[in-house]
Amino acid sequence: MTEHQYEFDRAIAIDEGGRGRLHDGWDINGNANGGYLLAVAGNGLRAVAGRPDPISVTAHYLAPGKPGDVVVDARSVKQGKRFATVTGALTSGDRTLLQLVGTFGDLSASAGAGAEYMAGGPPVLPPIEQCIPRRSDGPFPVPFMDRLDVHLRSSDVGFISGVKSGVAETAGYLSFADGRPVDTLALLLVADAFPPAVFNLELDAGWVPTVELTVHVRAIPAAGPLRCVFRTRFVSGSMFEEDGEVWDSDGTLVALSRQLALLPR
Amino acid sequence: MTEHQYEFDRAIAIDEGGRGRLHDGWDINGNANGGYLLAVAGNGLRAVAGRPDPISVTAHYLAPGKPGDVVVDARSVKQGKRFATVTGALTSGDRTLLQLVGTFGDLSASAGAGAEYMAGGPPVLPPIEQCIPRRSDGPFPVPFMDRLDVHLRSSDVGFISGVKSGVAETAGYLSFADGRPVDTLALLLVADAFPPAVFNLELDAGWVPTVELTVHVRAIPAAGPLRCVFRTRFVSGSMFEEDGEVWDSDGTLVALSRQLALLPR
Repeated sequence: MTEHQYEFDRAIAIDEGGRGRLHDGWDINGNANGGYLLAVAGNGLRAVAGRPDPISVTAHYLAPGKPGDVVVDARSVKQGKRFATVTGALTSGDRTLLQLVGTFGDLSASAGAGAEYMAGGPPVLPPIEQCIPRRSDGPFPVPFMDRLDVHLRSSDVGFISGVKSGVAETAGYLSFADGRPVDTLALLLVADAFPPAVFNLELDAGWVPTVELTVHVRAIPAAGPLRCVFRTRFVSGSMFEEDGEVWDSDGTLVALSRQLALLPR
Repeated sequence: MTEHQYEFDRAIAIDEGGRGRLHDGWDINGNANGGYLLAVAGNGLRAVAGRPDPISVTAHYLAPGKPGDVVVDARSVKQGKRFATVTGALTSGDRTLLQLVGTFGDLSASAGAGAEYMAGGPPVLPPIEQCIPRRSDGPFPVPFMDRLDVHLRSSDVGFISGVKSGVAETAGYLSFADGRPVDTLALLLVADAFPPAVFNLELDAGWVPTVELTVHVRAIPAAGPLRCVFRTRFVSGSMFEEDGEVWDSDGTLVALSRQLALLPR
């Protein structure tokens, strides 16, 4: 493997045999963050696809990830003119952590192409200095948060102080702590990097495992902090969706995400 | 294969070897409807999962479906206590039409379980008699529409008369034409059964192929017409998402869908 300047690149490195390693420090209370797992798996899938950008990637989460060796077992299903589609799994020993399908392409080719229709824009956020830095300590340890610079809108952090907003929405800014630019692969991490929006509801929602996470990458992010918002509209049958929007510093929509997650029954 | 009372069941039948047949009449201008393809594939995946209800199913669309023999090649990845996860493909000869991953479970076990939070409700629709029946003729032939009873809100059908609303939203009622109850498997069909919401925009959007479609099934539908709404918020880089909500006649949210689709470049 090549030397990498940034810790994210070291932590998602996959060799030509699909071998990699879940690094320590990307976890929440001992379990690897779901976005980190998606980025590791996505890095392996992308190599097999042979295209630079994830366009749509879906992972089903089957077992928690712990630091140690992993393999991305990926197979190309279609190599088309515009896109390549890959199926695969992220495994640790004989355990499948994630089962995936993904389509990859080259977003530099479609930048600014075609008609635009935007029924909405970036989340309205106060200046970053007026937001609350998300820390790795708190109700339970989130070492993962030391990898990122996440600044949350102050109305969305009541779950830390105990005064919850009652609205399932979390918004704020995101960058890598070590200054690594956020590229399209890193958007897979970003899609699961914020505290769950349901933390702002009066629910018993400490542990909300992801069943499935899909990320659509729509554009290559410009440099600078991303503006992100995650919303849950419907909690029912002990399940909920969480929809994310990720906008770059130029106000371009760069990713949409949706996950299905579980509440304790 | 067993005799089936309803045409949908005949059209999605899969034998123990995973063999089935794409039936004529479920197409749009000669290509099988994407929701129909998802239902056929989902029926094969569900058999391998051994659970009654799709929970989250994702398909990547790689080639159009034509009437004829198909195979659902599915493999169980995890059989858990609550869910089973399956990976697979829908193939026709040596062509992969859909590549899929899906998680299945038993929704009768979680009905009404846990906390509820609903930031929204069913789409507001006029009585069904005041809606416009979607017909199989029009700008181009949609034989698929003879299989269903779709009644659209009159403000959403301007794309037929040429006076477009300018809002990427389509809402209406849906039932099977032959009275088959809509079960959780049929919700996979429903997720792609409406005219694209972008038809209501001033775009050159006659042929908008699906790249990827994910359906979350949240509850078992009660009898009676479903209320559906499909919305596109962001068209950019010649791609757009379409988000669907499906509600049953009791006002229960039964499915959420999201697809990534392409505009002509």
